[in-house]
Amino acid sequence: MYRHKVRYFEADQQGVVFNMWYLGYFDEAMAAFLEEGGLGYRQMLDAGFDVQLVHSEIDWGSSLRWGDEAEVRVGVAERGSTSFALDFDVSAGEKSVASGRTVYVVVATDGTGKRPIPEILDKALGPA
Amino acid sequence: MYRHKVRYFEADQQGVVFNMWYLGYFDEAMAAFLEEGGLGYRQMLDAGFDVQLVHSEIDWGSSLRWGDEAEVRVGVAERGSTSFALDFDVSAGEKSVASGRTVYVVVATDGTGKRPIPEILDKALGPA
Amino acid sequence: MYRHKVRYFEADQQGVVFNMWYLGYFDEAMAAFLEEGGLGYRQMLDAGFDVQLVHSEIDWGSSLRWGDEAEVRVGVAERGSTSFALDFDVSAGEKSVASGRTVYVVVATDGTGKRPIPEILDKALGPA
Amino acid sequence: MYRHKVRYFEADQQGVVFNMWYLGYFDEAMAAFLEEGGLGYRQMLDAGFDVQLVHSEIDWGSSLRWGDEAEVRVGVAERGSTSFALDFDVSAGEKSVASGRTVYVVVATDGTGKRPIPEILDKALGPA
Repeated sequence: MYRHKVRYFEADQQGVVFNMWYLGYFDEAMAAFLEEGGLGYRQMLDAGFDVQLVHSEIDWGSSLRWGDEAEVRVGVAERGSTSFALDFDVSAGEKSVASGRTVYVVVATDGTGKRPIPEILDKALGPA
Repeated sequence: MYRHKVRYFEADQQGVVFNMWYLGYFDEAMAAFLEEGGLGYRQMLDAGFDVQLVHSEIDWGSSLRWGDEAEVRVGVAERGSTSFALDFDVSAGEKSVASGRTVYVVVATDGTGKRPIPEILDKALGPA
Repeated sequence: MYRHKVRYFEADQQGVVFNMWYLGYFDEAMAAFLEEGGLGYRQMLDAGFDVQLVHSEIDWGSSLRWGDEAEVRVGVAERGSTSFALDFDVSAGEKSVASGRTVYVVVATDGTGKRPIPEILDKALGPA
Repeated sequence: MYRHKVRYFEADQQGVVFNMWYLGYFDEAMAAFLEEGGLGYRQMLDAGFDVQLVHSEIDWGSSLRWGDEAEVRVGVAERGSTSFALDFDVSAGEKSVASGRTVYVVVATDGTGKRPIPEILDKALGPA
């Protein structure tokens, strides 16, 4: 789980976290999720693999405010041959805030395109 | 149409615009779209109405790089009683980059909740 | 002390944290410093006071990278009648990264301008 | 001169542009200034040179609000053997907002450290 205390500048004139910052939270939560699974992001890069975001979606039911202690839970939604999808759930205390999904494609760091999910990543995503 | 020259700090270590900034682009493009339709955002606020984002989705086919002159085209996707959806298309020169959709709910600025789409907004969205 | 793990999108194409984010760190570090001194920012606002940044300066000797665990130490540099200055020191592990200073003016939240430093803030800043 | 229409998310809960975004403006204004002088940033990189920010300072006399059309004027403040300083002046319409200074060191893109200001950069900075 990724925890984040909402920063002052993330709240906009409406007093709530501006929508784009949620994608920043998801990015950190994804890296933390893989790390909990035993795969540091740098380690993946060093092995010649990277991930590219090809899809994101977010549904908001509520909002975060400055100082809120947000918690982002991550789960594996789908696993394909060269891509995988993660589900995100954002809450703060008792408050359910938003849910989201992102789809990543695995690519080679040498610029030669898509790759099948490597074993180190497959393991980090957990049992299928 | 909203035009934006990609800023240096919007590109990440992969050399491409980090995903969250697209939601920032959409926000500006939405305001520009309404303004082209004759409704300044402040004018809407002054009339007692605001919009809240309840859903966003983005699909990327390519990426933007620092200095790219991005163009964001906006269209009305759906129109409900208290909400509406916009479609976004992001390109740079000949390059098609991403498409997205956002759904907004109309609320009263006095905190009393949802409101039917007011006439000034309905007009700005264009013929149904 | 304020701790912050550098987020992916804070690093730019040079692979180092883009300069503007340091001012974001200082802002959080300032709020944390006052809170350690017993004054929550909301509490200050509720008492009718706010602070406005009128000056900032930063000197960089090194840089932060993605994943670095930054530590920001804060100290009181100067204390005037309606303003005060804080010193910031940014490091990551053994690495000294940057130092900075910011000057804040105390204002009334009702828009009526400058105010002498209130007792609750004076106490939070520590012994003169 | 660099022009920027303040984006919604750059304004914070106080309704004014959060301080860190000014450093983002300066960065774009610097690149625009060099480009007006005939040196594209990419061109400088291609020639093997880059600049690193080692100092920044900002003084605020007023603030920018959402939708303000900010203008950032740039001038050369100092020119050393391996470094140079730029002055920035931020205004919006009749309103004088802030002034700033940044100091850059010229480095080799191959990681071998400081370099004397190359002729292409010297020319772009204008007559000494």
